Amino acid sequence: MEGQTFFTIRWEEGQVVMLDQLLLPGKEEYLRLDSAEEVAEAIRRMNIRGAPAIGVAAAMGIALGLQGAGEDPAALRSRFEQVCRFMGETRPTAVNLFWAIERMTRIFESVADQPADRIRSALRDESQRILDEDVASCRRMGALGARYVRDGANILTHCNAGALATGGYGTALGVVRAAHQEGKRIHVFADETRPYLQGARLTAWELQKDGIPVTLITDNMAGHFMQKGRVDLVVVGADRIAANGDAANKIGTYPLSVLAREHGIPFYVAAPLSTVDMNLASGQDIPIEERGAEEVVIVGGTRIAPEGVDAAHPAFDVTPAANITAIITDAGIAGPPSAQALQKLFMEGGN
Amino acid sequence: MEGQTFFTIRWEEGQVVMLDQLLLPGKEEYLRLDSAEEVAEAIRRMNIRGAPAIGVAAAMGIALGLQGAGEDPAALRSRFEQVCRFMGETRPTAVNLFWAIERMTRIFESVADQPADRIRSALRDESQRILDEDVASCRRMGALGARYVRDGANILTHCNAGALATGGYGTALGVVRAAHQEGKRIHVFADETRPYLQGARLTAWELQKDGIPVTLITDNMAGHFMQKGRVDLVVVGADRIAANGDAANKIGTYPLSVLAREHGIPFYVAAPLSTVDMNLASGQDIPIEERGAEEVVIVGGTRIAPEGVDAAHPAFDVTPAANITAIITDAGIAGPPSAQALQKLFMEGGN
Repeated sequence: MEGQTFFTIRWEEGQVVMLDQLLLPGKEEYLRLDSAEEVAEAIRRMNIRGAPAIGVAAAMGIALGLQGAGEDPAALRSRFEQVCRFMGETRPTAVNLFWAIERMTRIFESVADQPADRIRSALRDESQRILDEDVASCRRMGALGARYVRDGANILTHCNAGALATGGYGTALGVVRAAHQEGKRIHVFADETRPYLQGARLTAWELQKDGIPVTLITDNMAGHFMQKGRVDLVVVGADRIAANGDAANKIGTYPLSVLAREHGIPFYVAAPLSTVDMNLASGQDIPIEERGAEEVVIVGGTRIAPEGVDAAHPAFDVTPAANITAIITDAGIAGPPSAQALQKLFMEGGN
Repeated sequence: MEGQTFFTIRWEEGQVVMLDQLLLPGKEEYLRLDSAEEVAEAIRRMNIRGAPAIGVAAAMGIALGLQGAGEDPAALRSRFEQVCRFMGETRPTAVNLFWAIERMTRIFESVADQPADRIRSALRDESQRILDEDVASCRRMGALGARYVRDGANILTHCNAGALATGGYGTALGVVRAAHQEGKRIHVFADETRPYLQGARLTAWELQKDGIPVTLITDNMAGHFMQKGRVDLVVVGADRIAANGDAANKIGTYPLSVLAREHGIPFYVAAPLSTVDMNLASGQDIPIEERGAEEVVIVGGTRIAPEGVDAAHPAFDVTPAANITAIITDAGIAGPPSAQALQKLFMEGGN
């Protein structure tokens, strides 16, 4: 399905090729990147975004970074460490980035004493594996989560936790896609998701491509439609989940969780187990990225506020576990989420 | 103060002159209108907006509508009725529009048997009186409401309930201005207020002009800053308040009221008593304007969503009285709001 009309990121002849998400929905253009530095810059500028997709991009970028690094083992190690370092500095909140760097590091260490070509191919293979596993994990989440979607359901989502945010298929939109594929007649309210408008630009575009009925709303309309009984469930992705189930996700997610609880509407988070950071006790420990004010005051080239006005831009907020009905992971469901429930998923089927 | 650098609307040599709010903050241009039809169109297109300002504009437009209407009493009456009718069809939610039409109708009836010039001057005088009274009533609300603002307070507001939304000074921003003038060191979080961006374009502009510290945020950031303990109170305007205290205001107000309650933050509505519609028992009876989807998907000339995608655009939502700490009116404070408390204000000092 979505793989037939576009892809988020892949290897092509020694280059990392990714759909330029900053140009959507106006233009469907692919960036062809030749270096780890270019990949890091694409992550930072948000040409690619979404926690799982960032993880895949970082892994591919790291593999790319060793391509022209010669044969000397010491030089290769030094370059590997350099690339991992700047890749880790691109964005602070999505834990999948650090998880991918760790996986690549494990692979590097396992082949570090082998010939350079073997190291390079091992890294490249691992990055492809991360991509393939991510798509498979999205499909598992979709199959698991679709049970929560009844025929005729109105589903509210925020930001883009879709094919574009992952290797393909999506986390929150994976649940939507799976329900749609099961033949359930669903309808999606897509929050436009200021300031980057991922909902308007990406979620609406993805769902439209797949023929899934979608209504775009501004973020501040969600409460009104909940009040009117027009929303049956909320499903969102996550950028990092603490050990207790608190979940960081795109700014604007937390208020939706409060509104959902106010109206007795179930609120689901769909994210692979790689998004769970068992090193952080609670959401208070999750680092929240602060981005530039210009991203708030300039929309599509137009300045929407007076010159010189201050603007804040926290890129994420934290939804407490108590507001989450269930976390849908690729290893099973933690519902309601708790340290114990998440620990159990890691024990049973964690990767 | 604000009157020295700009004005919202006034009479100038037989024309109604209003600041074109669709061009702010990029351009500060005034529309000079010669006919009631042009005024109605300006209200509909939102060149002027804000419930009290709409009331003033409608009154001035009606007075303008009789300027070229000749001397014949029957023709004058017919024209008066026509103008009132199309003025009443411009926007459905703000009750001040209908209140202003009623006031103009009372004046018309009181002078209908007098010479045409006397009718015209009476209508024009009444429209000026509505403007003057509105500014005075904003100042009263400011003085009354400032008691809720402590020194050092962080105040969150939504949309623009400022000088630009009224004859001058503002309702919610009247409270902010009064606290500032009392020497309290305050700081305002201004929700940008999608889709029309009244917060980014108008509130930030007004406060910047008056030297009141302001931080612009996207609507979906309010919950995050409340969660972080950065918001001490919320103050907003209203477009129509039902007899029980339920208040319709710009879309996005209702979720703020839920979030404020969740965090124990007081939530105030500032509006003149003319905004209270004692004919409606509850907020469920308030008509909610649905505007065009194009206003959601086009920002500053840029399309932010794919062609053909559906978008919803309810322009207002309703905050239940239970979520409102107090309604600050020009006739006193109803806190907590209730049918009884509002009735009392009408009895004591209502206009």
